[in-house]
Amino acid sequence: MKVVVLAGGLGGSRLARGLAETIDPADLTIVGNVGDDVEILGLHVSPDLDTILYTLTGRLDETKGWGRAQETWNALDTVTELGGESWFRLGDLDLGVHLVRTQALRAGEPLSLVTARLAIAFGLEPRLLPATDDRLRTWLDTPAGELPFQEWFVARGHRDEVDGVRFEGAEAAGPAPGVLDALQAADLVAIAPSNPFVSIGPILAVAEIREALEQRAAPVVAVSPLIGGHAVRGPAGRMLSRLRGGTGPQQVTDCYEGLLDALVIDEADAAEEAGVRTIVTRTLMEDAEGRRRVAEAVLEGAGALA
Amino acid sequence: MKVVVLAGGLGGSRLARGLAETIDPADLTIVGNVGDDVEILGLHVSPDLDTILYTLTGRLDETKGWGRAQETWNALDTVTELGGESWFRLGDLDLGVHLVRTQALRAGEPLSLVTARLAIAFGLEPRLLPATDDRLRTWLDTPAGELPFQEWFVARGHRDEVDGVRFEGAEAAGPAPGVLDALQAADLVAIAPSNPFVSIGPILAVAEIREALEQRAAPVVAVSPLIGGHAVRGPAGRMLSRLRGGTGPQQVTDCYEGLLDALVIDEADAAEEAGVRTIVTRTLMEDAEGRRRVAEAVLEGAGALA
Repeated sequence: MKVVVLAGGLGGSRLARGLAETIDPADLTIVGNVGDDVEILGLHVSPDLDTILYTLTGRLDETKGWGRAQETWNALDTVTELGGESWFRLGDLDLGVHLVRTQALRAGEPLSLVTARLAIAFGLEPRLLPATDDRLRTWLDTPAGELPFQEWFVARGHRDEVDGVRFEGAEAAGPAPGVLDALQAADLVAIAPSNPFVSIGPILAVAEIREALEQRAAPVVAVSPLIGGHAVRGPAGRMLSRLRGGTGPQQVTDCYEGLLDALVIDEADAAEEAGVRTIVTRTLMEDAEGRRRVAEAVLEGAGALA
Repeated sequence: MKVVVLAGGLGGSRLARGLAETIDPADLTIVGNVGDDVEILGLHVSPDLDTILYTLTGRLDETKGWGRAQETWNALDTVTELGGESWFRLGDLDLGVHLVRTQALRAGEPLSLVTARLAIAFGLEPRLLPATDDRLRTWLDTPAGELPFQEWFVARGHRDEVDGVRFEGAEAAGPAPGVLDALQAADLVAIAPSNPFVSIGPILAVAEIREALEQRAAPVVAVSPLIGGHAVRGPAGRMLSRLRGGTGPQQVTDCYEGLLDALVIDEADAAEEAGVRTIVTRTLMEDAEGRRRVAEAVLEGAGALA
């Protein structure tokens, strides 16, 4: 059974890990968000691709939910001492990835190729593809003005309300090599419980990816990021409320209009309207059992639909 | 008494530190070699400027003689794991400097200005100037072909014999802002016991700096890098032997033909011909007393000449 999962950062990486632990990992392709990529200290940082890479190879700091386990912060301490750009927390182990990636990109290597090299070196079993090799960046329309993703999310702690989301470069962005092939060969496309607006949105903003899902042969099953009407982490709840008028399964389905065959929702939201066929389970992925439970619910959704 | 010292890496930084501990540090200008600057992992590394910066602000790893004290190597461990460029040992604390410098240079800031900012942030008291803001790189003519400095020095451990030295970009390189003014205002110009060919040579390869020394009003006093016909560290001895036909004070003087008023030599070399007025002392700078002794010998050389 060939599966493609569209994934943002932590929630995406946890579903991807659950799927990789449930099916043959060689049959899994992860399409990662690059809308929150950012240049820090002259380095190209791909936070979501790295969170996926770190999570699935046992390198993630599971307590923080980002960055590397057993990380040190000496380079950033020097940068801080020198008055440099230190608002984005780059650890020393993490920096090695950004240095190698940036050097390769500067030499003209596409992001998908660098990502593949990093994945091989770290022993990642599923295939990891960026949604696009082209520059695509997420901007937030807020009462404080339009903000680039990381300024809104990290520098300002996503306190600003969001009135709209824009994907700079999306019109010109094509899918990275392998993405369309993987979608066409898939028996199931999973959409991870990542933020629909800023994690999955940038992937679907690549027109050919969205079209491939619209014209799908295989079922598309999303996992709701909500538990009892609240996002497990981050600003998804507030954004759903403000941009879709509520924080229930229906609003999640609305984000993926025309794209979903089923939605995996938490038991706490089972009584709510979803506007699409639902699979109910406990969706919190705190450990291997939780990851497997959600992965199986996704596979069940596809099985029932196939 | 205003002093300018031309300095390479460790020997240069130790004499500079000795001078800064002996005269008013505000009266000292250090002109640093940039011929061994190198791009590693896309970062601009200025090893000699950094050794000076670290030595004079108490940050140097005194055991290794390069890099930062209490250094960690996590970023480079990741780079190694990823098959990246890891032959040049960049520690985590050290990396912070290269990240800030590289970002500033990419934004169009000249090296002299970045260096001044780093020096202020680290609390360096003397003024530190790169010899030039222009690109100037040292190449070695060896039996294995022409090699860039760091490939010869670090990657191949300066094992290859040197038949000649070339300074790429020297013809077009002008002195960094402040260098000529400092030389003109100086009461003494000191040449550190750095390698005459690859540490001091690139500074003197900037035509206006060499001319300023040739037309000097103030005395120029060099410190020989030899003790008993051997270099304290590095390949200076072998290079003097092969390129100047011997490893005595005379060969050091020959390297600075037309530029020297006096040479500080070690007691072990006192019986040798020098071809210029000598000041004899113990030139090893292992501690504060040693640094002060050599600094005072240099000042004595100037005093006797003035």
